[in-house]
Amino acid sequence: MPETAPLRLGIAGLGTVGVGVVRIVRKHAALLAARAGRPVEIAAVSARSRDKDRGIDIGRYGWEDDPVALARREDVDVVVELMGGSDGPAKATVEAAIRAGKDVVTANKALLAHHGQELARAAEAAGSVLRFEAAVAGGIPVVKALTEGLAGNEITRVMGVMNGTCNYILTRMEATRQGYDALFDEAHKLGYLEADPQLDVGGIDAGHKLALLAAIAFGTQVNFEAVEIEGIEQIELRDIEEAAAMGYRIKLLGVARMTGRGLEQRMSPCLVPANSPLGQLEGGTNMVVIDGDSVGQIVLRGAGAGEGPTASAVIGDVIDIARGFRVSTFGVSAGDLVAATPARAAVPAPYYLRMELIDKPGAMAKVAAVLGEAGVSIDRMRQHGHSAPTAPVIFVTHKCARAQIDAALVGMSQTGVVAGAPVAIRIEEV
Amino acid sequence: MPETAPLRLGIAGLGTVGVGVVRIVRKHAALLAARAGRPVEIAAVSARSRDKDRGIDIGRYGWEDDPVALARREDVDVVVELMGGSDGPAKATVEAAIRAGKDVVTANKALLAHHGQELARAAEAAGSVLRFEAAVAGGIPVVKALTEGLAGNEITRVMGVMNGTCNYILTRMEATRQGYDALFDEAHKLGYLEADPQLDVGGIDAGHKLALLAAIAFGTQVNFEAVEIEGIEQIELRDIEEAAAMGYRIKLLGVARMTGRGLEQRMSPCLVPANSPLGQLEGGTNMVVIDGDSVGQIVLRGAGAGEGPTASAVIGDVIDIARGFRVSTFGVSAGDLVAATPARAAVPAPYYLRMELIDKPGAMAKVAAVLGEAGVSIDRMRQHGHSAPTAPVIFVTHKCARAQIDAALVGMSQTGVVAGAPVAIRIEEV
Repeated sequence: MPETAPLRLGIAGLGTVGVGVVRIVRKHAALLAARAGRPVEIAAVSARSRDKDRGIDIGRYGWEDDPVALARREDVDVVVELMGGSDGPAKATVEAAIRAGKDVVTANKALLAHHGQELARAAEAAGSVLRFEAAVAGGIPVVKALTEGLAGNEITRVMGVMNGTCNYILTRMEATRQGYDALFDEAHKLGYLEADPQLDVGGIDAGHKLALLAAIAFGTQVNFEAVEIEGIEQIELRDIEEAAAMGYRIKLLGVARMTGRGLEQRMSPCLVPANSPLGQLEGGTNMVVIDGDSVGQIVLRGAGAGEGPTASAVIGDVIDIARGFRVSTFGVSAGDLVAATPARAAVPAPYYLRMELIDKPGAMAKVAAVLGEAGVSIDRMRQHGHSAPTAPVIFVTHKCARAQIDAALVGMSQTGVVAGAPVAIRIEEV
Repeated sequence: MPETAPLRLGIAGLGTVGVGVVRIVRKHAALLAARAGRPVEIAAVSARSRDKDRGIDIGRYGWEDDPVALARREDVDVVVELMGGSDGPAKATVEAAIRAGKDVVTANKALLAHHGQELARAAEAAGSVLRFEAAVAGGIPVVKALTEGLAGNEITRVMGVMNGTCNYILTRMEATRQGYDALFDEAHKLGYLEADPQLDVGGIDAGHKLALLAAIAFGTQVNFEAVEIEGIEQIELRDIEEAAAMGYRIKLLGVARMTGRGLEQRMSPCLVPANSPLGQLEGGTNMVVIDGDSVGQIVLRGAGAGEGPTASAVIGDVIDIARGFRVSTFGVSAGDLVAATPARAAVPAPYYLRMELIDKPGAMAKVAAVLGEAGVSIDRMRQHGHSAPTAPVIFVTHKCARAQIDAALVGMSQTGVVAGAPVAIRIEEV
């Protein structure tokens, strides 16, 4: 018989997302009850301050100053962890909840990227469910799609644009023809950046998400340390414009792929075709692209952050639990998750190369020779007219290994005809 | 304790999709077992001919000539109905399976569009699960997204391009500048059309899918009869070209929306912005766009048909059942599904109008007067230079009700200055 007693939530953290969850539970009580087959209620909450004005009345709920105490309350069935942070109170709260036999729903990508394996194992041992739809790509139900809807597929690749702030900066650079610094400032003024902006523009936040997607896509232990991360700080307006002239756009793109040499996980700027779904993605929207052996390619698009979308994902997990659905955290038993060998950019790809060539006879020949020695062949080349003592030169290579590109970059710096550091950006086939 | 005994499938129908399901179960036995927490096996199959060469060996499975007998077999836990057809053997098989207390997975949109309510009720009474991810938009896990991932949302609109053949014909008309008839023939030669092509180009197949999406989006009883259906046969190349010139593309678009006046369900050609995800959709790919009050807009894109994608959706449902997930067919208890009042194109929209104006003085004034009398105001107008005795004239109206457009069309036919029947196509905001 399905459970019909109310499902009682304990919400730890009343920031934007926590308030969003409270609002949905209150506004849609009847709808949630009809869908879950039982009422969904908030039993208690915990936050830093009880008295802060959040635009919602929390007086009717139980209160705990200490989220760990919340996690242990008798009247809580599901602990909803929305505090954030990879360690500290968030980790203690989730651990306490699992020890107390409660189910857990979290939006905390950092926590799971760093401790997902041990938490999944602990949850399984305790008979608890630990779910995290809201941790990846906000409102897009991508964890569900990968672990459930596409469970009949061997996933061959999962990739995505999963940091709205970076995508906002990059698309605004192209639209306004302003440089990175100006758009960074704009994003900052609009409140789009984390307190530590490096989490956004350095690709760390998106890297956390990619590590989680890789685990569920390939049945591997979460290994955030193995994600090759490169931020968008080095992207210049001229790269965006050169890419556009060749039919590409630059995205901070996460790619996870199981190869014969191991698991490749990267979060880095890439060129993608401007007319592809990824290339067409504007502003703060997120997109995840999944390739499966039977399903082909599935593209999911939606808001990657914000009160409503993130709370929507939290409630989706809550409803699953209310309905009695008890799926493993990463889609298979924690003990079955494989420790994959990390493989650095294992799959060959074409690359975009930009360098400042010093204007003297034989310069181009030297660069071309370096590329040839590294085994890198040239698909396209552009050199613009110039008045400065250096000339910007763009190469698009044929497919080659990242190691070959790295060898070519080292070689170029030794030619004496390349000013500054050349830029190399992978072109991802989508 | 979770179930660990094998889940035993009985597959009724070994056409393209049935063969695809067999292939996945065989190829990915270990993967499915790891994900489901128990083996997934095929116990028995049924089809018209046992001896037909399907490229797979079915000799190892039990065989039934009669799918109803398959549905009753002791060694079958889940009946996978892949025969198709709204009545006849498919319906008898699903009914027999439910009566025997089996769970059912089907890809049969016609069956559920016509009998979904009674089958959901019967399944619920019997304690059976009846699932149909493969019936809507092929491999895209949209039923799961709507009923589970987005269960925290009040859905405000769901729309989609869900017939790949129609989208193929329309995008090829634009690309090749050929008329409808030529591309219909091409699609026919390529095997893209159903035995009864009217199911495709008449919008019926896509209408079935829309009726199912509406039921799960709004918690309403499936009401296929209330879907306003219009096919693509009337779309001319010049409409596609005129639309393109104004920044639109024509899609066979299904839209379901709950309004103050009732449930609006339409499957008809619409203009959508060329730079929107729907506008950019090429060829046989499907797309579903979901608007929710918390999540905002979610877009799902993927293959809408074919062996692999459809079988992938079937297996997704099977894995859910294997994991012990028992969700109601349409997301809420069958008894809670509401009989919604049908509302014909309730929401005002701009319209594209094309007519052949007879070239005589005062003709334009008469047409403009008719539009004015119907309360339809004009946003944009184009008249091309011409040599024929009639001139093609295009109007784009401001937002108005469909009833106003219909009144204007009647009025125009009475002016004596419009040759033939004017064309009216809704412009959908996306």
